[in-house]
Amino acid sequence: MDAQSEKLLAQIIRNTRVAALSTLRDEEPLSSMVAFVPLEDFSAFYIHVSRLAQHTVDMKKKKQVSLLITETDDGRADPQTLARVSIRCSAEMLENGAPGYTPIKELYLARFPASEEIFKLDDFNFWRLRPKGGRYVAGFAKAYNVTVETLQDVSKR
Amino acid sequence: MDAQSEKLLAQIIRNTRVAALSTLRDEEPLSSMVAFVPLEDFSAFYIHVSRLAQHTVDMKKKKQVSLLITETDDGRADPQTLARVSIRCSAEMLENGAPGYTPIKELYLARFPASEEIFKLDDFNFWRLRPKGGRYVAGFAKAYNVTVETLQDVSKR
Repeated sequence: MDAQSEKLLAQIIRNTRVAALSTLRDEEPLSSMVAFVPLEDFSAFYIHVSRLAQHTVDMKKKKQVSLLITETDDGRADPQTLARVSIRCSAEMLENGAPGYTPIKELYLARFPASEEIFKLDDFNFWRLRPKGGRYVAGFAKAYNVTVETLQDVSKR
Repeated sequence: MDAQSEKLLAQIIRNTRVAALSTLRDEEPLSSMVAFVPLEDFSAFYIHVSRLAQHTVDMKKKKQVSLLITETDDGRADPQTLARVSIRCSAEMLENGAPGYTPIKELYLARFPASEEIFKLDDFNFWRLRPKGGRYVAGFAKAYNVTVETLQDVSKR
């Protein structure tokens, strides 16, 4: 991957605030929007979701999910050139107040200060999405496979 | 659903240019970005994809897919209030040049004029995504189930 594509990948992971989460529901794929925050080294992505939401019920049954981060449409002539990365992940719930909870909450609130109120509701939890691999499209006909190592390297850009 | 939420749903379906498509790959959900165009009455969504792409291979094996249309992030304080609709669809390939092909090509090119060049490649096809139902989130904690009839009604807004 060229340096420019690496930089663009780091940018979309850091700057995009919402992603599409795909889960499995009744043997069929289901997509939903999630706000997310990456760890600094891109070794995990955190989402904060209600226990009542469909995707949460799905993740409890099947931890294999897919997270699609798409560059925000800036109205350019050809939206097919928007950069996007589709990351296969393993999802795992974090108990509220468990070790490691507070730094994640701080990271999340630094990104989503308007979400403060949600932490008063007790049906919300963090889920850790651990990347297993993926596919990065840096523009039309410019695609790369992505490994856990690729993400770590790119996080230094 | 209130009139304002209906109007917002019609707007995001008409004005958003890219969506997240979820397909099934090796029993796991896979999400990818697609450019799409809706029919005027929202009875189908069309995407134009390469036979070589992963999502196309997936749709050939399993026609049940999910299309997530998310309001473009405008930088508002709370991205959780972005409107989005997740639509369960049945996917079906359209043969190039088959009856009905030309009007779809015109509709697609009116929306994506920069895609003209792609029609010179012979590994691209239209796929028709027929809605079966879905879930619309008009903002935080404001969610509605959506039927085929809901989509038709909303398309008149």
